[in-house]
Amino acid sequence: MTEPKHFQRVLIANRGEIALRIQRACRQLGLETVAVHSEADAQSRHVLEADIALCIGPASAARSYLDAEAIILAARLTGADAIHPGYGFLSENADFAEAVEAAGIHFIGPTPASIRLMGDKITAKQTMQATGVPCVAGSDGPLPTDEQEVLALARKVGFPVIVKASGGGGGRGMRVVWKEEDLLKAVALTRKEAQQAFGNPTLYLECFMQKPRHIEIQVLCDTHGNALWLGARDCSLQRRHQKVLEEAPPPGIPPELIADIGQRCAQACNHIGYRGAGTFEFLYEDGVFAFIEMNTRLQVEHPVTEETTGLDIVCAQIEIAQGKPLTIKQEDVQTIGHAIECRINAENPFSFSPSPGPVTKWDLPGGAGIRLDTHITQGSTVQPYYDSLIAKVIAHGATRTEAIRRLKVALAEMQVEGIETNIPLHQALLEDKGVLDGGVDIHHLEHWLEKRSHP
Amino acid sequence: MTEPKHFQRVLIANRGEIALRIQRACRQLGLETVAVHSEADAQSRHVLEADIALCIGPASAARSYLDAEAIILAARLTGADAIHPGYGFLSENADFAEAVEAAGIHFIGPTPASIRLMGDKITAKQTMQATGVPCVAGSDGPLPTDEQEVLALARKVGFPVIVKASGGGGGRGMRVVWKEEDLLKAVALTRKEAQQAFGNPTLYLECFMQKPRHIEIQVLCDTHGNALWLGARDCSLQRRHQKVLEEAPPPGIPPELIADIGQRCAQACNHIGYRGAGTFEFLYEDGVFAFIEMNTRLQVEHPVTEETTGLDIVCAQIEIAQGKPLTIKQEDVQTIGHAIECRINAENPFSFSPSPGPVTKWDLPGGAGIRLDTHITQGSTVQPYYDSLIAKVIAHGATRTEAIRRLKVALAEMQVEGIETNIPLHQALLEDKGVLDGGVDIHHLEHWLEKRSHP
Repeated sequence: MTEPKHFQRVLIANRGEIALRIQRACRQLGLETVAVHSEADAQSRHVLEADIALCIGPASAARSYLDAEAIILAARLTGADAIHPGYGFLSENADFAEAVEAAGIHFIGPTPASIRLMGDKITAKQTMQATGVPCVAGSDGPLPTDEQEVLALARKVGFPVIVKASGGGGGRGMRVVWKEEDLLKAVALTRKEAQQAFGNPTLYLECFMQKPRHIEIQVLCDTHGNALWLGARDCSLQRRHQKVLEEAPPPGIPPELIADIGQRCAQACNHIGYRGAGTFEFLYEDGVFAFIEMNTRLQVEHPVTEETTGLDIVCAQIEIAQGKPLTIKQEDVQTIGHAIECRINAENPFSFSPSPGPVTKWDLPGGAGIRLDTHITQGSTVQPYYDSLIAKVIAHGATRTEAIRRLKVALAEMQVEGIETNIPLHQALLEDKGVLDGGVDIHHLEHWLEKRSHP
Repeated sequence: MTEPKHFQRVLIANRGEIALRIQRACRQLGLETVAVHSEADAQSRHVLEADIALCIGPASAARSYLDAEAIILAARLTGADAIHPGYGFLSENADFAEAVEAAGIHFIGPTPASIRLMGDKITAKQTMQATGVPCVAGSDGPLPTDEQEVLALARKVGFPVIVKASGGGGGRGMRVVWKEEDLLKAVALTRKEAQQAFGNPTLYLECFMQKPRHIEIQVLCDTHGNALWLGARDCSLQRRHQKVLEEAPPPGIPPELIADIGQRCAQACNHIGYRGAGTFEFLYEDGVFAFIEMNTRLQVEHPVTEETTGLDIVCAQIEIAQGKPLTIKQEDVQTIGHAIECRINAENPFSFSPSPGPVTKWDLPGGAGIRLDTHITQGSTVQPYYDSLIAKVIAHGATRTEAIRRLKVALAEMQVEGIETNIPLHQALLEDKGVLDGGVDIHHLEHWLEKRSHP
């Protein structure tokens, strides 16, 4: 039993919509907020609304939002006794989490050990396999250096296989091999790249699932041994490993199958002593789930889970960091209707070239079942230095059909001028038969885009 | 069994946030929309977004939104085959509903007979009493003209009593009598006023409940004999009979008591052959419900019911008018969490003087559990000719506490410039112990305002 920990002032080590999201949760819980920001973000909404705001560096993320020392110093200077890292930036950096805790500041997230464990893709997979989370067949550890052993392993797994860097993730450091004769060359090339990109030549090998969906399980664990899974999300609509549209629950997957995987994820969390919110990412094909990685942080797409469970994941993260036990049990977690999130980016909807600049018109949609998460207001400037996410439009409905029709009307209502957005892409996707039917694979969007440009 | 009726183009005979609300529902159902508007509303959001827009008169409501002939003519000219009246204006005008139907246009609302029945407060009460809906003790019909009979009746009911005009409603045409010796004078005075104001001298008398709450039951009835009740709302925070903040479910009233009343309301609907959405308004004190009137239309506060049931009342109204049967049964109607709505008015928050004019800044709140219904965008002008409602901020949470804390953060985030709003009034009310505890009576806000101005 952990003693209840209390803190009063939370530094939010992030920017954009997620900084505002976290700030709202802090204020709802009666906590003061500290915004740290780059020079470019001085006029950003969460900065203007924070109790204390501190500029920690120039526009460059490396010299501001990624500067761990500056952030910890800012916490000391402002008397912040907790740090929420948001997503991206330093959120999955075990050294940062460790430095925060060493400075006597609460880290609103998992322990540095958990972050480190899941950061190494081989040990993550081995740990999951040991606790009963299904993983894709493969090398079950580092790929041997002996060429004959590699060949034998790949034959046993069956072609096509995928060769991955242990230090990679998010689509980087991987290569698909379709035929035996290409294997050794591909391994050599990937090993060289892994050494260069991640400073770690360790590789592993897996069976390559050809038309999988991306399905993920949200978990929430307190420090009193309670681990909950909060349903699944379908995030298969991706372009270059970047999610575009996410939904919950995943269409067409039997709830009892999801419940079985969810229970295994919760058990794995108990096994590793996981703390806070996290996401188990799976490939899913023909009724089979295969673990790929765990994200030890809040996800961009967490609102679809909030909408379908009625739970507040960010408030829960904070309360867990305060040492409070979860107030609900697994049997209290419901799935209420269906939710879909569109990531609205400042970019050309089909060439994907970024479109920063001042937002001269910003009329938001609203009404029944529409949630908006955005840091933009009319007159804001979209900065060119960071990712292009400017808003999330989340539609909730009693059914998937209702969520889709609410989303369509909301996207049509949203009026943005001064910058380009990917709203037309979302609108086109919501007319696509595959998307409307539900259950497309992770290649669907790329194929759809190809067909669109070469009809 | 009614034949399914289909229509394609809906004329929305209203303005402001509710016109946009109805337009959203129409678009979600794949229906075209016609906006009719006054000259003053030509640049209003729902007008700009409608498929067809038609100016039907000058700013004066009497010559535009209340001009039944002009509206029916507009429907003919634009080929609209249905009319949604919204709330206020012509929404409870039986003659209008009758004229619409006589023109071969579907009226999205109850039958003219139901509107007429409920428009007469005496027959409404008699009908309710006959069907088992509890009513406050009283004259059970028109007040006799014989003075001795009036005195005997009032003695039987017990003082204080309230004398009301049958043609009145919404707080007009009523007088409280505390002592027997004041009764006859009060009756004479009220009768004279009723004749002048409503052209109908008929009065009735009721026991006067001293500290009641205003509790109402939302109903939804199709044309196939299915009548549902969708939970209760507490609308006790009122000023001059105008609701200010509404919530669902009503704090502190046992759910089984509400279920009993709800069932009686649904039975009454079946009895009178009610069609569409409607609201039974009750006074509630010490466990006793007393029917006061039925609103035969959509209410401003319908979103708190939508948020806590997950149902879309406006889409349901339209589908009922199309002759479709309700797809859910009473046992499917859930109460999910708690919802509170703040009516945001363009007015001084404490003097209540209207504050029309151009809105130069309009930064909306958002995030988890926040719904916004508004026709305003940055650059809009609030017109002086109509009621001052410019937005509804609705917070939903798993508990009342969570809904309140989300609401507080949302109100603090909302930035409006160019006009005054009553946001500071809502913020002050959400710090008041009575409001936070829940269950205040209908006089609470007026007393609170008095105390505030004479501390």
